[in-house]
Amino acid sequence: MPRFIPARIIKKKRDGLPLSSEEISFMMRGFLEGNIPPYQVSALLMAIYFRGMGMDETIALTREIIRSGSPLELRDLPGMKVDKHSTGGVGDKVSLILAPLVASAGVYVPMVSGRALGHTGGTLDKLESIPGLRTDLSREEMVSQLKAIGIVMAGQTEEIAPLDRELYALRDVTATVESIPLIASSIMGKKLSEGIDGLVLDVKVGSGAFMKGYEDAEGLAKVMVEIGKGMGKEVVALITGMDQPLGRMIGNSLEVLEAIEVLRADREGKEDLWEVTRELGAWMLIMGRKAETIEGGRDLMERLLLEGKGLERLRELVTHQGGRDVISDTSLLPVAEERMDVLSEEEGCIASMDTERIGWASVLLGCGRRFTDDRVDHGVGIRVHKKIGDPVERGEPVFTVYHRKGQDVGKVIEELRSSITCGEKVPSPPPVRGLIR
Amino acid sequence: MPRFIPARIIKKKRDGLPLSSEEISFMMRGFLEGNIPPYQVSALLMAIYFRGMGMDETIALTREIIRSGSPLELRDLPGMKVDKHSTGGVGDKVSLILAPLVASAGVYVPMVSGRALGHTGGTLDKLESIPGLRTDLSREEMVSQLKAIGIVMAGQTEEIAPLDRELYALRDVTATVESIPLIASSIMGKKLSEGIDGLVLDVKVGSGAFMKGYEDAEGLAKVMVEIGKGMGKEVVALITGMDQPLGRMIGNSLEVLEAIEVLRADREGKEDLWEVTRELGAWMLIMGRKAETIEGGRDLMERLLLEGKGLERLRELVTHQGGRDVISDTSLLPVAEERMDVLSEEEGCIASMDTERIGWASVLLGCGRRFTDDRVDHGVGIRVHKKIGDPVERGEPVFTVYHRKGQDVGKVIEELRSSITCGEKVPSPPPVRGLIR
Repeated sequence: MPRFIPARIIKKKRDGLPLSSEEISFMMRGFLEGNIPPYQVSALLMAIYFRGMGMDETIALTREIIRSGSPLELRDLPGMKVDKHSTGGVGDKVSLILAPLVASAGVYVPMVSGRALGHTGGTLDKLESIPGLRTDLSREEMVSQLKAIGIVMAGQTEEIAPLDRELYALRDVTATVESIPLIASSIMGKKLSEGIDGLVLDVKVGSGAFMKGYEDAEGLAKVMVEIGKGMGKEVVALITGMDQPLGRMIGNSLEVLEAIEVLRADREGKEDLWEVTRELGAWMLIMGRKAETIEGGRDLMERLLLEGKGLERLRELVTHQGGRDVISDTSLLPVAEERMDVLSEEEGCIASMDTERIGWASVLLGCGRRFTDDRVDHGVGIRVHKKIGDPVERGEPVFTVYHRKGQDVGKVIEELRSSITCGEKVPSPPPVRGLIR
Repeated sequence: MPRFIPARIIKKKRDGLPLSSEEISFMMRGFLEGNIPPYQVSALLMAIYFRGMGMDETIALTREIIRSGSPLELRDLPGMKVDKHSTGGVGDKVSLILAPLVASAGVYVPMVSGRALGHTGGTLDKLESIPGLRTDLSREEMVSQLKAIGIVMAGQTEEIAPLDRELYALRDVTATVESIPLIASSIMGKKLSEGIDGLVLDVKVGSGAFMKGYEDAEGLAKVMVEIGKGMGKEVVALITGMDQPLGRMIGNSLEVLEAIEVLRADREGKEDLWEVTRELGAWMLIMGRKAETIEGGRDLMERLLLEGKGLERLRELVTHQGGRDVISDTSLLPVAEERMDVLSEEEGCIASMDTERIGWASVLLGCGRRFTDDRVDHGVGIRVHKKIGDPVERGEPVFTVYHRKGQDVGKVIEELRSSITCGEKVPSPPPVRGLIR
């Protein structure tokens, strides 16, 4: 390897010049091996924050992230391996419905998920509300479960993309998280370490998403799709709405409950949740060679749902990962017993929902973590009665808070109350907004 | 002290918001005490590189630099304490002439100097070409010498501005050196730690300066003068030319030799060197209450020079710091014996000199350091025969290289040859360009 001088590489980026893949490799391997100190890497990350990275650089960084670990080796599996990734939202339990449905069509779904981050929920925390269920599977367990039932939903193992873990930890404490090339390479590096053939991205946009504006979301989606292409993988991105919580439930066990309801084909009042799930699924089925067109994919998703295939596959997943059969007996889920309604103080129509605020209210309640060592309460949560465009009368419940006996939920109620505005009738925002491929 | 979150402070600066002095203090003290890791400080420095700092922030940082150490305590000295600082140039031996002259007028000159940096020379290296002379004086030695002879020229002690040392070391390896507020606070923090009443700044501009353009030099000068005002000190800045080497000599012992010549009132061919020295001295004499007007200051400088006062004071300084009396016997200076001329290949007038290149040629020769652990050769150097505006004939010497026997100077000669352009007659550039006060 050529010898580079780290300060000159930092300076090059600082001055707006593109880095070669050798330079990126030199910095990143040096960082992981401990030869390049974190203070040079953080200076480089801040320079990247200001100057951005071109597509070649972003792909080079993604490759380094993948190369830093040993990707899951799934070539032996006789079929397509397809996954989905969401940039994170409030009430986003799509994975719990989507993965079992797509797997039930014969597509392998090796899903490596994350935990609640900031105001958004995480699939691992939701799954862990199922008593007994394990998400800390080894690579061997993941591969053997895929062979057995075609689906696994687990956490990142030590061997997958260690560079991403190190970089993320550094970015988190140096204010260098909000950079599209860094976000894109982190997501894609992790996902493409799963040994998959195709990936469907769910890029959220709106008040509850990290990307509040459509252009930012589209920009991120484009970069991720380009990275996928650059690495010879099939990748499409849907841009979906996060102006309001997805579906009706927020909170770990409550979201599992809602996912089970949808898998039982009970979609009433949660049409947005099903529409996003069906669209993502249709693309996964295309990539999995189970559908040829998007219409065909949608139809197959409908059929799988109505035939109860997804529910069956979820049950297999849960029991395979050591969980109790909450599908047959949802009362096993630890839903908090106390309820408190948040009543509307106005009358009219729901005009807007500050969904990030609703997300933070759920974190405050215990659904997520304010500090890294906080413990999640899997039972608490929020039911959303009214969504954008719904008429509401004074004194009518807008939210119901599920909480623990004696828990002080004053602040949660206050946050929820101030998260909505009432006004003229507005149309319900469309769940699926755009497609980047 | 209020508890801040370092990442939020970095983010604030990243987003272009000003930091409070408490936030700057929190980060800098935490850094020095080891509570805030270098990777957060380097990210902050890179954000400052991009976003700049306002005057309040720059003054707050300067205060932290001063506060981090114990400034020299000179209040007992019965008179004004005035120093000069140059931003660095090629052939800049001004301090060796200026400090003794001003001290001889009864102004205390506590000069803490630096070493060669990049392509520029450093006063400490020049002084150390005098056999036996020590520059590593303790605080106590510095103060006692000032009491005895009114002048000291020494290196930074451990106790002076340790934060600046730490910050500079970090900036050097993270490509965050070239930031006006960081440069200004570093210089001013160090200089105002000397316990001085007044400071004259020599901000170099031109091909051999760090600031190549007048506006950058002026910007830096203004910030430094403002910092001085903000801290209740008298500070003026002269902007002086560095389009060509100052005087005729480059190299440590050669520059001492040239300084002795000027102090003997031999100014022929080195009028620019004397003009800059006289102007800086005039301002120091005003601050030292030895002159009332700039004209009066200039006259006094002339008189002191012609009376040989500066030469006498330099001799006292040298012997007080353990050096042999090179003033009486300049043959004690270790000047390299071998000579090689660089001849003009064109005829016409010297139109321009790439002075940074000339500086790097001198570094290559051994006058400075390419790597931090390089040793300086005090005897080698370059004599400058032709300067901008001088007529030159083909085959006439433009430079003479003073080198060691057997030393390969091919590259040095090549660099020197390509540093000059010949052309139409142009006027000699003025040594003093501007005044900021």
